[in-house]
Amino acid sequence: MITYLPLRISKPLGFLLTITTYLLQGCSQKQSAETAKPPVSDFMYQYSIIDALLAGVFDGNLTLGQLKTKGDFGIGTFNRVDGELIVDQGNVYKIRYDGSIQEVPDTDSTSIAFVKFFKADSTFIIKNITLDELEKKLLAVLPANEMYAIRMKGHFEKLTSRAPGAARKPYPSLKDHLAKQQHLFNLSNTDGVVAGFLLPGYIAKVNVPGFHFHYLANDHKSGGHIFDFTATELTVEIDKIQGYTVELNTHADFDKVGLEKDRQEELKKIE
Amino acid sequence: MITYLPLRISKPLGFLLTITTYLLQGCSQKQSAETAKPPVSDFMYQYSIIDALLAGVFDGNLTLGQLKTKGDFGIGTFNRVDGELIVDQGNVYKIRYDGSIQEVPDTDSTSIAFVKFFKADSTFIIKNITLDELEKKLLAVLPANEMYAIRMKGHFEKLTSRAPGAARKPYPSLKDHLAKQQHLFNLSNTDGVVAGFLLPGYIAKVNVPGFHFHYLANDHKSGGHIFDFTATELTVEIDKIQGYTVELNTHADFDKVGLEKDRQEELKKIE
Repeated sequence: MITYLPLRISKPLGFLLTITTYLLQGCSQKQSAETAKPPVSDFMYQYSIIDALLAGVFDGNLTLGQLKTKGDFGIGTFNRVDGELIVDQGNVYKIRYDGSIQEVPDTDSTSIAFVKFFKADSTFIIKNITLDELEKKLLAVLPANEMYAIRMKGHFEKLTSRAPGAARKPYPSLKDHLAKQQHLFNLSNTDGVVAGFLLPGYIAKVNVPGFHFHYLANDHKSGGHIFDFTATELTVEIDKIQGYTVELNTHADFDKVGLEKDRQEELKKIE
Repeated sequence: MITYLPLRISKPLGFLLTITTYLLQGCSQKQSAETAKPPVSDFMYQYSIIDALLAGVFDGNLTLGQLKTKGDFGIGTFNRVDGELIVDQGNVYKIRYDGSIQEVPDTDSTSIAFVKFFKADSTFIIKNITLDELEKKLLAVLPANEMYAIRMKGHFEKLTSRAPGAARKPYPSLKDHLAKQQHLFNLSNTDGVVAGFLLPGYIAKVNVPGFHFHYLANDHKSGGHIFDFTATELTVEIDKIQGYTVELNTHADFDKVGLEKDRQEELKKIE
């Protein structure tokens, strides 16, 4: 269900009440509609886990062709951390370290990606807002234990993003790789689409809690992992997620890194 | 694929080498067979998350009839934490606080459950072993970042388990509930089946890292969440898991509990 709210909102309270009302309507109507079809369609799918990427598992065996069967919208990266990945309307794009954009062949692979079949439960338009302000408004109205896919289109007076260059073996940690191979882009007056997620704290180690957004300019000349923006006009679409599927990375490197901590610690809580 | 290893193993080294060989054979053969069918069949499915149960979300909206469509093997509990849940060969059983066993109607609901369509990759028989000894042997040979469903059948000289009584509203935390409503069973010379999982540390907050087993006696007269056992003969079946699906608890209580911590903390690691 898509609900358009083409009002010009200036008062924060009005914003909060309106988005709350529309989200609740969207979610309740959606849940009743869900009963007629397989629930998996409203789930996020992800290949590999963020802690593996952080530990240097930079290769995976999932092709982009396979990824597209799991969702038409999302974010991630490519093997060797060769740029930022964004999926919008079923197309996969690579934002390279030099800021250029490529459509990517289905035969290329990803080391980590998070996708969903995007279907907005709520849509609203907001003007003159920074990313930080928008995030605070969304956190104030969206239940903290739920998961959301968020798609935004608009005009950005300023937008700061990055993309990494590809790593070479032996792979370092992601932090060390980004320290040397992260290229920053300071964009001005750019029109484009933002894809990403708002995820809860309990998904830590597997995905990124909080907001995580990638950008693709409409002219396909810039993009990247978003650090900050100021938007003059923004259409925000929010899609509440019913759950998620994690497919473990089948590359041999996945079993070689040390992810394991506190095994058995959790069990003590229920004994 | 089921591989039977009916040897009498006495030396630890022999045990380790043999299980390693059989597991590797099982997994490689399984992966090539998986390509012909949807990969979801080899995934664990879970309804709700462990941190919600710990925080007192003791009700859920998933019926046992729905749960059975997600797997024929697994563990969990029922609404109100009314006993321990075990699924084996497609049947759902309740181990009540008084130690009695019930088959449960499909219309009952669960607040949390973890299930899979069980298909052993490896099977071995081992004699005269405690749970602690068995877990140490398995941890020594199974890659720590992977996930496993584990089914065991045998004769237990001793087995200690528990089952909780149902909670009443307002629900306390699980820890507080178990402190008052946990009933211990010290079983002797019992034959039955153990169902459970070995899960990695990164699944913390969502599920229970490490080993987690429930028991059902063959005569359906005892069972429960296992604390310890000594087995005289045990057939151990291990099923490597490709990934997992988490369906968020749709009960209204899920949005009311405070699970949220360290939002945005993780994002800092990749910026």
